Amino acid sequence: MAKKAQATPSVRDALRVPPGAAGVPLEPGSRPVGPRARADGAEAMAATGARLAELQEALYAEGVTGGHRSVLLVLQGMDTCGKDGTIKHVCGQVNPQGLHIAAFKKPTKAELRHHFLWRIRRRAPAPGMIGVFNRSHYEDVLVARVNALVPEHVWQGRYDEINEFEAELTAAGTTIVKCFLHISAEEQKERLIARLRDPAKQWKYSPDDLDARDHWAEYQEAYAAALARCSTVDAPWYVIPADRKWYRNWAVSNLLLETLEELKPQTPTPGFDPQAELARLRGSGQPG
Amino acid sequence: MAKKAQATPSVRDALRVPPGAAGVPLEPGSRPVGPRARADGAEAMAATGARLAELQEALYAEGVTGGHRSVLLVLQGMDTCGKDGTIKHVCGQVNPQGLHIAAFKKPTKAELRHHFLWRIRRRAPAPGMIGVFNRSHYEDVLVARVNALVPEHVWQGRYDEINEFEAELTAAGTTIVKCFLHISAEEQKERLIARLRDPAKQWKYSPDDLDARDHWAEYQEAYAAALARCSTVDAPWYVIPADRKWYRNWAVSNLLLETLEELKPQTPTPGFDPQAELARLRGSGQPG
Repeated sequence: MAKKAQATPSVRDALRVPPGAAGVPLEPGSRPVGPRARADGAEAMAATGARLAELQEALYAEGVTGGHRSVLLVLQGMDTCGKDGTIKHVCGQVNPQGLHIAAFKKPTKAELRHHFLWRIRRRAPAPGMIGVFNRSHYEDVLVARVNALVPEHVWQGRYDEINEFEAELTAAGTTIVKCFLHISAEEQKERLIARLRDPAKQWKYSPDDLDARDHWAEYQEAYAAALARCSTVDAPWYVIPADRKWYRNWAVSNLLLETLEELKPQTPTPGFDPQAELARLRGSGQPG
Repeated sequence: MAKKAQATPSVRDALRVPPGAAGVPLEPGSRPVGPRARADGAEAMAATGARLAELQEALYAEGVTGGHRSVLLVLQGMDTCGKDGTIKHVCGQVNPQGLHIAAFKKPTKAELRHHFLWRIRRRAPAPGMIGVFNRSHYEDVLVARVNALVPEHVWQGRYDEINEFEAELTAAGTTIVKCFLHISAEEQKERLIARLRDPAKQWKYSPDDLDARDHWAEYQEAYAAALARCSTVDAPWYVIPADRKWYRNWAVSNLLLETLEELKPQTPTPGFDPQAELARLRGSGQPG
């Protein structure tokens, strides 16, 4: 058999949703790329974490010195899918000073008086930052659609509005990474039971969670529509199989890593002469 | 000799600045409490980190469920004193979702048209959060004083304004922990040389750093005045001996830990009956 060099499989290629895809293209329990076993995943994460932290520091340095690029990680998924856990375990690997985390809850009365993207635009990441949206503008085509919070022609129009908004962000220098943390109804049931049984975790539960669960099929349909209509070349959606927490963390870490590696943030050239400054520093004598 | 139970020494007690203290009461190279050796410091940090993360989660849970308490860590010090490193290594131990980090740079023209506390008030931590100020309103009695950016009667009046502002924050539920990361002029020189020699770190250097260094004695005087006049019972200043990075990280971690342990954030009682919800969940059958 002829040997063929095997290219490292790209996590982005394996998890990316093709524009116009019918349904959600990956199963919650699948592992289409990367480690099969939890132990291998943990080992891979450790290496990824160090590299992520380095690249994040370089991106931050770029931003401080006049660069305009940033990254925006969008996290969506059903209750208990692991948005908070992803922030803790994946984003927790880099310097928190370089993170801008925005959690979008049910809109306030004041927010509802504005266009649905108003509160979102205000939280877009500044240059050099990794922005993280814990829920996002996609709620406006998910819960808004399932619960008919607005008339159909309104939410139908939002897919195009979202694509235009994301194209603007991209043009301004933001690389958008949208993750659907995909869990099964069975796994959600297990996690809700665990939450309700553990007094230390009960605060994460809300009786509303069960109302949303009762509309499981409609939510899956709404997610599939958002993926199909808003997975674009510049701002693709990725499906993260999330029934296994370790696999979810591995996958999102590696999506971020591939994204930052492609950006190749550059340590900026200083706007001064280091040798001259060293001489000045040595000549300044002992102050105080 | 009679044995006497030895109380664990309080890091806060050892590092706290007494109101009206003359000068900076601790040396940059001292270790008035805690581990003497780097290896012991690293071991102590690992234990502290896990406990900090737990308490931070409980504080966050309190905030989500209607609590009003928060913590504000203020970091001040001369260039290279380790503000960024403290955020990375100390604050990096907890879930970044519970952190609100604000870096205060040279005020913009728009900010200068407002009262000096205007931009500060807007970044006060929300309930449940650990706010971190990387520089702060104290710049307005430090660089503003040393460089005479405002007339003396203006900066002289600011100490009282700061105390009133901090008293308001405290009354609203925020526990303020103010850290002066205290380095020596010799250590700063070493760190500036290291920055200038390493192309990957040059972006952290600015020629302005040497201008500030040329006013070393005046800055020490300005810091001493800020500590003396603004170390209050409710919002004390702590001096962090910062010539050793590991000791600095150990000390700030333990100040935070003692603060959170005293707050005893409580896992909130749920506003629902967990047993009833479990029954509802089991009865809901297999959706989808």
